[in-house]
Amino acid sequence: MPLSEFDLIATHFAPMAAPGALSLLDDAAFLAPPAGHDLVLTKDMLVAGVHFFADDPPGMIAKKALRVNLSDLAAKGAEPLGFLLGLALPKDITDAWLAGFAYGLAEDAAAHAIPLQGGDTVRSSGPLMISVTAIGSVPAGRMVRRLAVQPGDALYVSGTIGNSAIGLQLRSQAEAEWARSLAEASRSWLLERYLLPEPRMVLAPAVQHFAHAAMDISDGFVGDLTKMLTGSGCGAEIGLAGIPLSAQVQEALRFNPALMETALTGGDDYELLVAVPPHHVAAFETAAHGAAITRIGTATDSAQGIQFLGPDRKPHRFSKGSFVHF
Amino acid sequence: MPLSEFDLIATHFAPMAAPGALSLLDDAAFLAPPAGHDLVLTKDMLVAGVHFFADDPPGMIAKKALRVNLSDLAAKGAEPLGFLLGLALPKDITDAWLAGFAYGLAEDAAAHAIPLQGGDTVRSSGPLMISVTAIGSVPAGRMVRRLAVQPGDALYVSGTIGNSAIGLQLRSQAEAEWARSLAEASRSWLLERYLLPEPRMVLAPAVQHFAHAAMDISDGFVGDLTKMLTGSGCGAEIGLAGIPLSAQVQEALRFNPALMETALTGGDDYELLVAVPPHHVAAFETAAHGAAITRIGTATDSAQGIQFLGPDRKPHRFSKGSFVHF
Repeated sequence: MPLSEFDLIATHFAPMAAPGALSLLDDAAFLAPPAGHDLVLTKDMLVAGVHFFADDPPGMIAKKALRVNLSDLAAKGAEPLGFLLGLALPKDITDAWLAGFAYGLAEDAAAHAIPLQGGDTVRSSGPLMISVTAIGSVPAGRMVRRLAVQPGDALYVSGTIGNSAIGLQLRSQAEAEWARSLAEASRSWLLERYLLPEPRMVLAPAVQHFAHAAMDISDGFVGDLTKMLTGSGCGAEIGLAGIPLSAQVQEALRFNPALMETALTGGDDYELLVAVPPHHVAAFETAAHGAAITRIGTATDSAQGIQFLGPDRKPHRFSKGSFVHF
Repeated sequence: MPLSEFDLIATHFAPMAAPGALSLLDDAAFLAPPAGHDLVLTKDMLVAGVHFFADDPPGMIAKKALRVNLSDLAAKGAEPLGFLLGLALPKDITDAWLAGFAYGLAEDAAAHAIPLQGGDTVRSSGPLMISVTAIGSVPAGRMVRRLAVQPGDALYVSGTIGNSAIGLQLRSQAEAEWARSLAEASRSWLLERYLLPEPRMVLAPAVQHFAHAAMDISDGFVGDLTKMLTGSGCGAEIGLAGIPLSAQVQEALRFNPALMETALTGGDDYELLVAVPPHHVAAFETAAHGAAITRIGTATDSAQGIQFLGPDRKPHRFSKGSFVHF
């Protein structure tokens, strides 16, 4: 480790710190919360070898660590206020690696107007670990819950599903026939989707104003939708044919139809699941401002459970309900 | 790992969660900040083998992880609002260990009225790591800074210095003559001081109302006081004979005078250094409400630098300025 903790912070992280973070020279930062608002607090940890590969580009690792937390804020309808960064660094981390990490982090912090408020840096005798705590705000009492779907709610998903999961498969099965059959541009795009999710901040206001419930999909579409509905005491019929898939995933499915299961149950989508009451459907779609959202079904009461219907309208069973990072 | 992440959280952590944490079943928690207040944000990470021993009692590890963050809030004059917990768990962690960890954490969270707001649990292929983000509040604009000492300020330290550092020495030198000469009660007390710091929350209001500057001592008295004064553009003469030491440390020093250096430069004191302007000295001492505080000197301008004076009033040089956890 070429730099002391003090120099490392001064060199790489102080330049992106919020004014209240006092150049990261104090024990703590101060932050004036917006009046009449609640704070929204979330924390996601990432571990090398579990949530990313240790040899991924450091700037991409930094962005992913921040973005998975931003995604939680978006799902709660919250606006970002700031974040704290915990870094446990293995001894072989170089100064160039840290520079790349900090550069990527600063880019994303600026792009999402979420300044660094503080953090801590320690040595790890194990893998690199990143612990981000993100703080956002919503008007008082307005944080959108996960387990508050009501029967009759329209169910939406943002973006497209399975890009990251298929991207991850490409890393472990680069020599498989389906992987080699993919167009080079498709392969690159899918690999990048795994590295770098796109948090749906643009949907946060629509979620805040018009949703009964929302969550971000981190552990797979099927598993997370099931959790959200079951925990809300609701059921649903979801037609698999109506789930939005990117052209690149569709291309992969043509070469290997069995990847459908991976796409729908794999993790790291970081798309939003949103339940919108019928009288707000039009307003929600308008407020999405052109961001891709797809209506995938309607919540029912819990009596019928949750059915995923194949093209033949028969219930489809997934062999693995959801992706587990833990 | 006998429990799934879901069951682990539901069993061990949900019972101590704040109402806004929604039983830890959501992606985020909400928290209504007190009107007219700033948030105070701090994060300290602890790694097994660096900040504690992996075989320390799990409840003590949990309490230390929370207390070192509480200590930062106290140093800023802040009142606790809540905390987030990140846990990276090695595979050999048992359910009994987690139960002990959660029990200790819940005890301290209740004792300090700082509810659990959320967090994340991941697997570690390396050591156990704990990342706590603590959130407190101060009246708007009133967070007490570290680097704001002014010439003429009275310099105070809370409690006694070196207990934890000598406790740590006892663990590595249990068979040394000085260690074996200590009374059993002294040995136990010092060992426990290393395991379990006492955050000086009781001093937070006095610090908030009457201090120019404050910090908590985590990296050693000499090094941290030097950082605080130098960063403030101040100097001081500090008489070593006036630094408060516990009876137990004094006992150890009688058997091994060389431990004085360890006591004053070792880490993990978690006592407060406080700079108080002359016109607030009486009010500060009254507001301490009987908590032990000792005046150790007076800040000067920076021209004379920082001198630690031995009993002969000659400057003492420490071979190692401060303890570095990093």
